[in-house]
Amino acid sequence: MPLLRPRGLHLPIEQAGQADRSANTRTGIEKMTKNKTDRPAPVTTPQGGAANALYQAMIGGAGPEATGWAGPLHFPVPRRRGEKVLILGAGVAGLTAAYELSLLGFDCTVLEAQNRVGGRNRTARKGDKLYELDDVTGEPVHTHTCRFDDNMYLNLGPGRIPYHHRRVLKYCRDFKVALEPYVMETTANLVRPPHLEKTLPNRRVANDTRGYLAAKLAETLAETDSFTGELRDLLRVFGALDVNGKYKGSTRSGYLDDPVIEEPFPTPAPPLPFEELVESGFWKARFYQPVDYLWQATMFQPAGGMDKVVDALAREARLAGAEIVLQAEVTDIRLETKGPGVTVQYLKGGKECEARARYCVSNIPVPLLDDDIELDGFSDAFEKAIGIVEFAKTCKVGWQANRRFWEGDLDGIHDTEGIYGGISWTAHNITQLWYPSNDYFSAKGTLTGAYNFGDQADELGNLSPDDRIELAREGAAQLHPEFADRSVVPDDKAVTIAWHKVPYQEGGWADWKQSRKDHKEAYRQLLQPEGGDVFYVTGDQISPLPGWQEGAMMSAHYVTQQILGIMPLSVPEVVSVPDSVALTQGLF
Amino acid sequence: MPLLRPRGLHLPIEQAGQADRSANTRTGIEKMTKNKTDRPAPVTTPQGGAANALYQAMIGGAGPEATGWAGPLHFPVPRRRGEKVLILGAGVAGLTAAYELSLLGFDCTVLEAQNRVGGRNRTARKGDKLYELDDVTGEPVHTHTCRFDDNMYLNLGPGRIPYHHRRVLKYCRDFKVALEPYVMETTANLVRPPHLEKTLPNRRVANDTRGYLAAKLAETLAETDSFTGELRDLLRVFGALDVNGKYKGSTRSGYLDDPVIEEPFPTPAPPLPFEELVESGFWKARFYQPVDYLWQATMFQPAGGMDKVVDALAREARLAGAEIVLQAEVTDIRLETKGPGVTVQYLKGGKECEARARYCVSNIPVPLLDDDIELDGFSDAFEKAIGIVEFAKTCKVGWQANRRFWEGDLDGIHDTEGIYGGISWTAHNITQLWYPSNDYFSAKGTLTGAYNFGDQADELGNLSPDDRIELAREGAAQLHPEFADRSVVPDDKAVTIAWHKVPYQEGGWADWKQSRKDHKEAYRQLLQPEGGDVFYVTGDQISPLPGWQEGAMMSAHYVTQQILGIMPLSVPEVVSVPDSVALTQGLF
Repeated sequence: MPLLRPRGLHLPIEQAGQADRSANTRTGIEKMTKNKTDRPAPVTTPQGGAANALYQAMIGGAGPEATGWAGPLHFPVPRRRGEKVLILGAGVAGLTAAYELSLLGFDCTVLEAQNRVGGRNRTARKGDKLYELDDVTGEPVHTHTCRFDDNMYLNLGPGRIPYHHRRVLKYCRDFKVALEPYVMETTANLVRPPHLEKTLPNRRVANDTRGYLAAKLAETLAETDSFTGELRDLLRVFGALDVNGKYKGSTRSGYLDDPVIEEPFPTPAPPLPFEELVESGFWKARFYQPVDYLWQATMFQPAGGMDKVVDALAREARLAGAEIVLQAEVTDIRLETKGPGVTVQYLKGGKECEARARYCVSNIPVPLLDDDIELDGFSDAFEKAIGIVEFAKTCKVGWQANRRFWEGDLDGIHDTEGIYGGISWTAHNITQLWYPSNDYFSAKGTLTGAYNFGDQADELGNLSPDDRIELAREGAAQLHPEFADRSVVPDDKAVTIAWHKVPYQEGGWADWKQSRKDHKEAYRQLLQPEGGDVFYVTGDQISPLPGWQEGAMMSAHYVTQQILGIMPLSVPEVVSVPDSVALTQGLF
Repeated sequence: MPLLRPRGLHLPIEQAGQADRSANTRTGIEKMTKNKTDRPAPVTTPQGGAANALYQAMIGGAGPEATGWAGPLHFPVPRRRGEKVLILGAGVAGLTAAYELSLLGFDCTVLEAQNRVGGRNRTARKGDKLYELDDVTGEPVHTHTCRFDDNMYLNLGPGRIPYHHRRVLKYCRDFKVALEPYVMETTANLVRPPHLEKTLPNRRVANDTRGYLAAKLAETLAETDSFTGELRDLLRVFGALDVNGKYKGSTRSGYLDDPVIEEPFPTPAPPLPFEELVESGFWKARFYQPVDYLWQATMFQPAGGMDKVVDALAREARLAGAEIVLQAEVTDIRLETKGPGVTVQYLKGGKECEARARYCVSNIPVPLLDDDIELDGFSDAFEKAIGIVEFAKTCKVGWQANRRFWEGDLDGIHDTEGIYGGISWTAHNITQLWYPSNDYFSAKGTLTGAYNFGDQADELGNLSPDDRIELAREGAAQLHPEFADRSVVPDDKAVTIAWHKVPYQEGGWADWKQSRKDHKEAYRQLLQPEGGDVFYVTGDQISPLPGWQEGAMMSAHYVTQQILGIMPLSVPEVVSVPDSVALTQGLF
């Protein structure tokens, strides 16, 4: 049975196409979409009606052509003046919910434990202090302070926006967050495979492999009936094969030498031996991650740092009336027994405070809700579910380089790298090295010097910050000898973060596994509010896109719709859980 | 025998490492490259010495590791005050030669037939008048005027800079021409194959094809000894195969539907049938051009238009002392018989003028040198050579759209395109549709609505501008129905150019063919000056990169070195000619 899906979020509750939407034309709440003559008109429904009836009508109206994005949130009034919402955590989902619910007339207060908004959306800048939980005491300790130059920055959390993450793109556009292309891959990037002590350029590995595979297929098909002229021609162009269907190298892999005037027909770089490519295991070093949908071009990044997104969300949420209270650490959440409502206790400046509300939206990482917060009045099923979800370990290291040596020496006589953005992949613990997709050709730059997962994140995270930086330097120097030079890439301008040790985060993303039946049950449970319609979990943790801001926004929209009563509170059936590995690390 | 190559252009003529280079530290003439301890030191040579001896020394010093780029021009004084150079044509090569030779102390005058610099480097803006040669009379006629909105622009000639075109990148950096990424391909781009009446998204065509080919190879290898576990694993990741080595579709091809909260495991778009892909002939529509080296990421474009490059070159050439005379149409070039020198006659404001110089560098398209200009004192071999070179036909159409519909409707409820840059390919006459790689998410945009070659350029160029625009609209509407709406994409804001009919250009690039023996002879001949050391041909037309600005600059540097005497005037051996098709249109 196909899963029921709400499609008509653009529908007004009151009167389709009739309600005065003048209050809704500001940023975030949209004007009604104009119908296009060549496309099916949006479904309209009778005015009023219970949420469930509307929901059913909406589902029924979504014809087979109405696939894809359900559109931005698109609510009419009624404005819910005076109905109070407590939002726990000012991450992307919390801020999104605060913004949307405030626009709808709810009285929103966000309690944020840290001294900044954004959660894992964090951009390191000069003077930023980094904290991690002490291995022994479990208490937060100051590990180091970012010492980048003025105006230098590096994203420690999310760093890129896929072109199909339309919620993020829409908020950026509406809130005037300038976007620039994030280059995921350039053929000048490098790969350091697991079973070969060499650093190879992307263009040679990618195109020689492609050529050999095409030639091998041409060879094996040569004697068969299925080898039509068309298929032969496809393989020739696909793999840059010669007229005999052999792969003898291609300029796709670059030139042997840069062309010169007197030898104007370029010689291809000699092909890497196929056996060496296969033995190297290069593809196990995530070489093909850029082929996966989430990382396909065109990707974007906010100019000036990813935190521009959360800064804008917080600004707009406040403008819409939300209050954001920083350094307010939630300790207790109690669902009322006498009627719908919630009481939240929190520490603020050493004092115990209390807040009450009709609704509560929790953007707190689920494992922390389980471990660190006293819950009262929650169902056993919910308490069980939050005990099941785990967060993934992941680390990053950030460098400031005083010279953009990876871009190459335009003034020099030697071969130069020509790396403008993208990622080099390595079997070393650091896993990957990101080059800046901004301020090309300028003097200095910041690089992501490690971004790893699983055991490698565990290993790196167990080291002291200094030792992490030392290990990351070793891994980077295998790709670029310049990393061995501390005057070019200084130690004191490096930063590092082990997200699984960061206070109030304790992980990179919810680590959902398809194979786990209890994950399926937990995911379904967490979509349903507690206390009837009072308490909601939000965040990328409870979305199809763990680790992605789009998932956080999608979840915040979902919860907003549940509170409005236009999305059911119970989930009819859940057929799957997210695939956290594929969604955060690619297909391997 | 390997071709001799000069490698040491960074070497001073006078005293290696000794000469006072304070005069050379300005833009364009570089400081000596610092030796890196981990790389071979640059060759040094004894001071003084004849050019040929130096050249030989330089060659001898270039060890096997010193491959690749020979570095930027890197001359010492002697400054040649008073030695006059006439440069014919203010295209990229002419301007580059004017700049470099002026810096070296030559007295340079550039005679340019048109009322603007840049040649084929042309960016259309509001008010720009376009001229083409009348089919009957052969006279230039005003075809139309660009009516873009203020601040809108479109490159009619070169539109992108590969990351390995370091001469262009270096001039841009040195002359403060801001560069931004040019997106050559996004997986949201479309393809309209020759044998299928459908428009398909890049991500599905690319990844389904890749998956099927990998699965086919896995199947045919399954029974053989060569099918190791490693190769099986490579094919799995390469093609996104399932555990059985089958291709059943992949999210690399996108999702069936955008993921929703209640169904968090995305379903891949159903794979296109392999037979349909093969029958469609999609690869014949240049689908794989972005895989070729010249178009690999990261590409760049100047922010604000490609003519920023020639504007900067002209400004810097003037600052270095060059005079640029516009609307000076060369009619006669006479090599002196009494001593080394040249006399050039030209029309300026209806008057016949004359200029004399010690050297002459011609950036005039070779076919025009042959057809339109009276030559006196040139060798038979030269006159024969210029009669052999042909220029390629190529057309462009440019659109201004009043809405960036290809980027998609972030406010809407329907599926949206999400095309941010890149190129859609079609078997229609227009061949390709370029989306803007700048000002994403803004209100309006300009697109290259046709860029074609050969017969298709001939066909399009034979039409009137209005009819070209009509045909281009038809081709674009097959990709995007919005093109049929003249209120969205107005006729009166379209521009069109048939480069082979543009006065003083008459083509897109020199159409060198590997297969033609006479092309080999002509190419070699044109590298050698006439009148002893007096007259030089320059331009991308006589470089390994026809149609590319890098080739123009490379040629200008070559000629500059010939004039300086540090590059031989005769070419010892020419083993090849450029491959104009591969270098301008990709491998097909």
